[in-house]
Amino acid sequence: MNAESIRKLFEQVRQGKLSPYDAVERLRHLPFEDLGFAKVDHHRSLRAGMPEVIFGQGKTPLQVAGIFDRLAKHGGNVLATRTDRRQYAAVKKKLRAAEYRELARAIVLKQDPQIYGKGKIAVVSAGTSDITVAEEAVVTAELMGNRVEHFYDVGVAGIHRLLANREALTKARVVVVCAGMEGALPSVVGGLVGVPVIAVPTSVGYGASFEGLAALLGMLNSCASNVSVVNIDNGFGAGYVASLINRL
Amino acid sequence: MNAESIRKLFEQVRQGKLSPYDAVERLRHLPFEDLGFAKVDHHRSLRAGMPEVIFGQGKTPLQVAGIFDRLAKHGGNVLATRTDRRQYAAVKKKLRAAEYRELARAIVLKQDPQIYGKGKIAVVSAGTSDITVAEEAVVTAELMGNRVEHFYDVGVAGIHRLLANREALTKARVVVVCAGMEGALPSVVGGLVGVPVIAVPTSVGYGASFEGLAALLGMLNSCASNVSVVNIDNGFGAGYVASLINRL
Amino acid sequence: MNAESIRKLFEQVRQGKLSPYDAVERLRHLPFEDLGFAKVDHHRSLRAGMPEVIFGQGKTPLQVAGIFDRLAKHGGNVLATRTDRRQYAAVKKKLRAAEYRELARAIVLKQDPQIYGKGKIAVVSAGTSDITVAEEAVVTAELMGNRVEHFYDVGVAGIHRLLANREALTKARVVVVCAGMEGALPSVVGGLVGVPVIAVPTSVGYGASFEGLAALLGMLNSCASNVSVVNIDNGFGAGYVASLINRL
Amino acid sequence: MNAESIRKLFEQVRQGKLSPYDAVERLRHLPFEDLGFAKVDHHRSLRAGMPEVIFGQGKTPLQVAGIFDRLAKHGGNVLATRTDRRQYAAVKKKLRAAEYRELARAIVLKQDPQIYGKGKIAVVSAGTSDITVAEEAVVTAELMGNRVEHFYDVGVAGIHRLLANREALTKARVVVVCAGMEGALPSVVGGLVGVPVIAVPTSVGYGASFEGLAALLGMLNSCASNVSVVNIDNGFGAGYVASLINRL
Amino acid sequence: MNAESIRKLFEQVRQGKLSPYDAVERLRHLPFEDLGFAKVDHHRSLRAGMPEVIFGQGKTPLQVAGIFDRLAKHGGNVLATRTDRRQYAAVKKKLRAAEYRELARAIVLKQDPQIYGKGKIAVVSAGTSDITVAEEAVVTAELMGNRVEHFYDVGVAGIHRLLANREALTKARVVVVCAGMEGALPSVVGGLVGVPVIAVPTSVGYGASFEGLAALLGMLNSCASNVSVVNIDNGFGAGYVASLINRL
Amino acid sequence: MNAESIRKLFEQVRQGKLSPYDAVERLRHLPFEDLGFAKVDHHRSLRAGMPEVIFGQGKTPLQVAGIFDRLAKHGGNVLATRTDRRQYAAVKKKLRAAEYRELARAIVLKQDPQIYGKGKIAVVSAGTSDITVAEEAVVTAELMGNRVEHFYDVGVAGIHRLLANREALTKARVVVVCAGMEGALPSVVGGLVGVPVIAVPTSVGYGASFEGLAALLGMLNSCASNVSVVNIDNGFGAGYVASLINRL
Amino acid sequence: MNAESIRKLFEQVRQGKLSPYDAVERLRHLPFEDLGFAKVDHHRSLRAGMPEVIFGQGKTPLQVAGIFDRLAKHGGNVLATRTDRRQYAAVKKKLRAAEYRELARAIVLKQDPQIYGKGKIAVVSAGTSDITVAEEAVVTAELMGNRVEHFYDVGVAGIHRLLANREALTKARVVVVCAGMEGALPSVVGGLVGVPVIAVPTSVGYGASFEGLAALLGMLNSCASNVSVVNIDNGFGAGYVASLINRL
Amino acid sequence: MNAESIRKLFEQVRQGKLSPYDAVERLRHLPFEDLGFAKVDHHRSLRAGMPEVIFGQGKTPLQVAGIFDRLAKHGGNVLATRTDRRQYAAVKKKLRAAEYRELARAIVLKQDPQIYGKGKIAVVSAGTSDITVAEEAVVTAELMGNRVEHFYDVGVAGIHRLLANREALTKARVVVVCAGMEGALPSVVGGLVGVPVIAVPTSVGYGASFEGLAALLGMLNSCASNVSVVNIDNGFGAGYVASLINRL
Repeated sequence: MNAESIRKLFEQVRQGKLSPYDAVERLRHLPFEDLGFAKVDHHRSLRAGMPEVIFGQGKTPLQVAGIFDRLAKHGGNVLATRTDRRQYAAVKKKLRAAEYRELARAIVLKQDPQIYGKGKIAVVSAGTSDITVAEEAVVTAELMGNRVEHFYDVGVAGIHRLLANREALTKARVVVVCAGMEGALPSVVGGLVGVPVIAVPTSVGYGASFEGLAALLGMLNSCASNVSVVNIDNGFGAGYVASLINRL
Repeated sequence: MNAESIRKLFEQVRQGKLSPYDAVERLRHLPFEDLGFAKVDHHRSLRAGMPEVIFGQGKTPLQVAGIFDRLAKHGGNVLATRTDRRQYAAVKKKLRAAEYRELARAIVLKQDPQIYGKGKIAVVSAGTSDITVAEEAVVTAELMGNRVEHFYDVGVAGIHRLLANREALTKARVVVVCAGMEGALPSVVGGLVGVPVIAVPTSVGYGASFEGLAALLGMLNSCASNVSVVNIDNGFGAGYVASLINRL
Repeated sequence: MNAESIRKLFEQVRQGKLSPYDAVERLRHLPFEDLGFAKVDHHRSLRAGMPEVIFGQGKTPLQVAGIFDRLAKHGGNVLATRTDRRQYAAVKKKLRAAEYRELARAIVLKQDPQIYGKGKIAVVSAGTSDITVAEEAVVTAELMGNRVEHFYDVGVAGIHRLLANREALTKARVVVVCAGMEGALPSVVGGLVGVPVIAVPTSVGYGASFEGLAALLGMLNSCASNVSVVNIDNGFGAGYVASLINRL
Repeated sequence: MNAESIRKLFEQVRQGKLSPYDAVERLRHLPFEDLGFAKVDHHRSLRAGMPEVIFGQGKTPLQVAGIFDRLAKHGGNVLATRTDRRQYAAVKKKLRAAEYRELARAIVLKQDPQIYGKGKIAVVSAGTSDITVAEEAVVTAELMGNRVEHFYDVGVAGIHRLLANREALTKARVVVVCAGMEGALPSVVGGLVGVPVIAVPTSVGYGASFEGLAALLGMLNSCASNVSVVNIDNGFGAGYVASLINRL
Repeated sequence: MNAESIRKLFEQVRQGKLSPYDAVERLRHLPFEDLGFAKVDHHRSLRAGMPEVIFGQGKTPLQVAGIFDRLAKHGGNVLATRTDRRQYAAVKKKLRAAEYRELARAIVLKQDPQIYGKGKIAVVSAGTSDITVAEEAVVTAELMGNRVEHFYDVGVAGIHRLLANREALTKARVVVVCAGMEGALPSVVGGLVGVPVIAVPTSVGYGASFEGLAALLGMLNSCASNVSVVNIDNGFGAGYVASLINRL
Repeated sequence: MNAESIRKLFEQVRQGKLSPYDAVERLRHLPFEDLGFAKVDHHRSLRAGMPEVIFGQGKTPLQVAGIFDRLAKHGGNVLATRTDRRQYAAVKKKLRAAEYRELARAIVLKQDPQIYGKGKIAVVSAGTSDITVAEEAVVTAELMGNRVEHFYDVGVAGIHRLLANREALTKARVVVVCAGMEGALPSVVGGLVGVPVIAVPTSVGYGASFEGLAALLGMLNSCASNVSVVNIDNGFGAGYVASLINRL
Repeated sequence: MNAESIRKLFEQVRQGKLSPYDAVERLRHLPFEDLGFAKVDHHRSLRAGMPEVIFGQGKTPLQVAGIFDRLAKHGGNVLATRTDRRQYAAVKKKLRAAEYRELARAIVLKQDPQIYGKGKIAVVSAGTSDITVAEEAVVTAELMGNRVEHFYDVGVAGIHRLLANREALTKARVVVVCAGMEGALPSVVGGLVGVPVIAVPTSVGYGASFEGLAALLGMLNSCASNVSVVNIDNGFGAGYVASLINRL
Repeated sequence: MNAESIRKLFEQVRQGKLSPYDAVERLRHLPFEDLGFAKVDHHRSLRAGMPEVIFGQGKTPLQVAGIFDRLAKHGGNVLATRTDRRQYAAVKKKLRAAEYRELARAIVLKQDPQIYGKGKIAVVSAGTSDITVAEEAVVTAELMGNRVEHFYDVGVAGIHRLLANREALTKARVVVVCAGMEGALPSVVGGLVGVPVIAVPTSVGYGASFEGLAALLGMLNSCASNVSVVNIDNGFGAGYVASLINRL
């Protein structure tokens, strides 16, 4: 029931064609969710600057390109995660402005250059193999209008590399930390900064890392109180949450 | 926004105190969920014969008695699962008609004697230790207005005991099967009958039964196509689903 | 012991060649299971309208085509699940009427057009990636003679899309809900409808979804009492159970 | 090496008692961490309004009281989580102003009444059994100087109860959602609001809930992008992270 | 359909009251399982010397004594596993001849002194803590009419203790090996003897033994080909299987 | 130290070239395990009729052929498990008599036709997909000199197919049962026969079968006391253990 | 066969009472392991300074006291781990010199004051709750004759506390690190020192720590190459391994 | 802040250009970690003889060759683990002296021939399939300047093969033991030697070995006190830890 149809209902009541009692009954049997739709759209306005997002994995190049093209028409930024070069080629054909961020395995189209984030987001990764996930977080945060600084290869077994960046880290408004293997880095970072830390376990490792389970459990049990966790390899989610926080 | 307040809105429109346009706006900013509430209540009427249910575990005798008493006022049947004798004593003080079903660890109050189920529900259990769970299913189904027949101690290692009851089993409209340890019984029963089988893994067993996990996995992998599964020890859920099916 | 050989036994008794006492003894030592066979066949008659089913995965195109052809001779509907186009090509050569349902990855042959289900089955899926599993349920239910309506891409993170279909959902006699990732959809649907909900966890997701385990556990722990669960990605099983319920 | 001792070093250099070269050498062999200490303390100033926290579980009443008393001298708020009435009695003897928050199982001493949070924190819980965890989050957030609003018993199986509070929910700057069993609530809430959601799995449930594992996995796989997760039953951590976010 | 009712059927045929054809039909619709019962009883005769067994855990002293008393009337040996002294006291009251085997936590009544086993059964245990399980195997095997020799505290970290008994071990016809922690003993014993080895993982250990899971997995992966495994702590099962083998 | 070298030691003592005291010392420092070797060889004689076995998986065709050729020179039967046609081609080139058992994925060379087993071994499998594992057990048992009978596709969901073979099953001296999915078959077979049952879980299944884990747990928790279990897909081990039992 | 009996054998040969050939035969049939025993005893001499150890958990006070008393007679140090005050009281009655190390839950008797370790062992623990495990390592190392230094409450979330002790840590010859929760400490310590690190996961934590599993997995996946791991809560094992290393 | 810049600071103080007080302030705000760097470098000198290491898996041949070349310039030994022949070819082009150790899948460049280890390291493996992991340990230990002896194919099911090498084993200063399947070997070896044993679980096995989990759990639960464990298949880590121990 959109606004128009409800208005008609009221119109009928005003014209005496329908008694208030009957109107209520009719209203009761209409799908109230349409009203909800309206509210949701209204609420959508809060989402200005949010990129449109496609999960590329398992989709054909044609499918990715098709969806990408359609979403691009909304005028905002568009992000396709977990993509490969073949999917990018298909998108590129339709949208010349689309770029491929190799490290992040992401296709991006930046149509909205505005900065929405109030401060800086720091993205930290433990090892060189975690960079793919970290870059996904970086790209996501950038597309959502944030200034992002990254600190790579600062794992806990060489703690001085991390400490050497403490000053810079403490200037961030929110920190994303990606780590595989034992997943210890968020705890250490969490102890160094006074802001929220979003921890991303990565599937980097072998044997008893169990595809990221070890890192995940480690992060959930962090002794630092300012750490919360997203799914294994979910760089996008971390960048998204960090962006929301940075907008506040 | 209950029916009353919406009616007033229409009344104001009818009296010309409010334009249809403004009425829509006002409606838009009211909590539309109240309307939802109304619908839900309406929808509730479909739930005639459904018992009010209390999960007794972890509640004090006083808490159970208090909730039980309040729910009893609705006039329907009341069921408290996972209770003990002390909780029953507290309920009994308030409601003399409440009974304790020892085997099922359930307190019941039967205020609605009507039969809602169209056929019979069969409840089958593998071993004597599974009876607690089976009885919870039985009590639930009975309180929901079904005729229930039970077949206990018919585990797969003595298949003839089960076969001896096949005739009777095939007469049920839906079958609940409770089994711990390897959880094989639902598969065998599923092969014998042509109706839906609700499987309930029980935590009966030790060692590699891992508190019912072995039975649960066994049932989920049943080679019989007519088997669906509820949570470990969830006799209530099985009785509930079976009752819904039997009402159709 | 088939009917023929038993008849001979009775004949001998009638002719006085065998005393009733000796006949009983002889009967006792015959394999009674043959008798069971007979009963099972009889019992089979209850299964009118059940499709013959082939699990295609791991079978060569020739094997699938061979079995399919043989089963088709029974005159009923035939369904091969988890198949690919190459397997379909092999079947098609033998049975021109066979169709390939791409989304469901199923080969179907409809020889029995009768409607056996009393009402409608609703099939709901959370995301676009769950559609393969949902379609398997749809195809299964259709081949078993049911009217099926589907509601796709109505995941819980956009609850209004689900609510917009509530009216339609509540008209189904049984609902199948497919969801991967957190598997929350069956709980929400379960709360909206008053009929049995068959939940199908899908392996859609990554990281801590552990190939559908997260969704499976979520569904087993559903706070809605009318939910029962089948194996991960088991769209066929869900469609089968739903069909049995809809026939009652 | 505190500031004082370093100053002396410089003093010696100024007075010509020590060559710059030797001073560097001496500095090199001093524990540089003391310097770090200083910085950390400085950095601590960022932590104004942070409560001192004690994890009460496994500690004797005397231990809790002793630590509590010592921390109280810092002048800020003090919070002891996972405590019981006996521990509270011991604390009460030393600090008459200490209160016991029964539902949260927390002992609190409020010495700093200042509000540090910029907006409101909403704490949502699915069932009545999750309230203990939710209250821990509430108490933590309050002690950290936030305005907190709670919404209890709004589980997904009765979605209208949640929707009825959507308006209020969307006014929060950050939302904490506690849920056991299938842990579906954060996904639904995440879809309704545009701010960060901190999800807390609780150990409420039985059988295949595996002490909160099912809820944990569900939340990690949330289809809502604004959800991050803390450890099972970690109401404190959720309240802490939410407070940090609300201060930004 | 018991023998009597079938005889009547034949009688009717003999008297010409029923045609053979009709008799077959009537037979077909009788519950054939009764016949199965008879066969099972016959088959039971193969089970001479098998003890009657009660799983004591979770049963009240009265229940154990009641069942024990009833089973004792069959004249064979009776075994109640996982019992305590209170249960024994109750049994003792009814059956003065019942003994309590403390180490095995078993109540036994030996009424059949016959030896059924052809050779000797060796029962080996790794540590002193595994003895409870080992003794349950010993008692079971003895009650089933076997000569049993035990070798305790011969764990793999002191391999010489095991080797010192190799000569004796190789004389057994079947070997039961109980071990907790890493569960390595069956592999070593399996390499030393040329007969079947029944491995019993025990829940002895802590931490990453996960209640016997480590030992169980170890035994299932034994590099010795003559090892098969029973459930964690299932001394009874191992003694039972070993007895069956020793009877061959 | 072989027998020869020890004899020389004694000879030296007899000839007075070495004092008994010095001889003991020298003996002490010789590798006593050589003595053990001798014993092992002696003990080996117990292993007459045991086939030489190669685990083919992960080995190149050349490696398999090389080892196969060398072992064939011992004169006994040779068995290579988990092989493919390419490995067989390589073996065939060296040993024309070698055969490929397709279903069992095994290369066999039968050089010892003797029957060592005293009775018959029955090999039972639940579904057509379990046949690979079952055939591995069959081939192993045959190569070890046993008469083997197999019963395929007798899963528990069609219990009559199994019962129709009960008579034949009860004639076996030991039964191997292979089953994937819920792994229920060994329990049912165990209840039908009075001899040892070796259960082999197979990795057949999908979703919550977790590569055979469900079947494995089911079998370990069997309610039939005569069941012991080997590793997932370990048809060889089951055939081996069954052969040892059948030789007794 | 001890040295004495072998000497007699040689004596008989020397005296011509036994031919060398017969002597070999007789030797062959003697339990050669006795010889092994001798060797083991010899080898034992390498174990000078090793304490006798009792695992107290699950033993009665009388049992602990009995074993303790017997082992004390060997003259070396005696250690009983996982004990309580009641067990200590029983030991104390027999051995006045026995002490109770409360924090380590250990009963110790120091009879051998010698220092065997060449350098210092450092024992580090993350939180105050890990101290029980750390102290068990300390006591073990001390009883094995080592100088031990401990560093408690230096968890990774307050990295400066750890760094403040780096100088001291780098002076140890081997470091034991105990940590629960995320188990990150060994990685950080491993990066700071150039010597072997023995990591001990502790069961400290809750929720997704899964009784120490999270810490265990974290340590096994350590990005520091000098870390090896012992069982959860196995302070004794860590102290033992560290002592062996420190003796080299 | 390197030594040079600090010296300048002191110089300014000496020249009276800066007051000691201001110098402290300035020092306080410099990144103290630079100082830490210096210390770390100093500490690095302890690491003489440590090889530079590259984890080859997942890197392109060009990447491996590039890093390898750069590290080779440091003058020490270089080791690339988990590499294949294509990666080796790329390295070989740049560094003719680089060798490929096929069994260990390692590329090595030996530029430092010095022996740093004080004694011998023994590397033991259970089966032929574990050799890859064992060889990785061997290569690592050799490149770190150790004498290494290996003992392959000495699994516990043929214990005499292991015992035949006991004498040699006891001469090692530290022992690395690699084993898959049940992982029992370290326990047996641990009982035979008096030195530290580093256990490496391998992913060799199938079914319930769960990619090395069974072996890992077995080793963590070893009944031998001198065993510590590294990650599954982590031959490098074991060789590294053993080398550190052997240098002491």
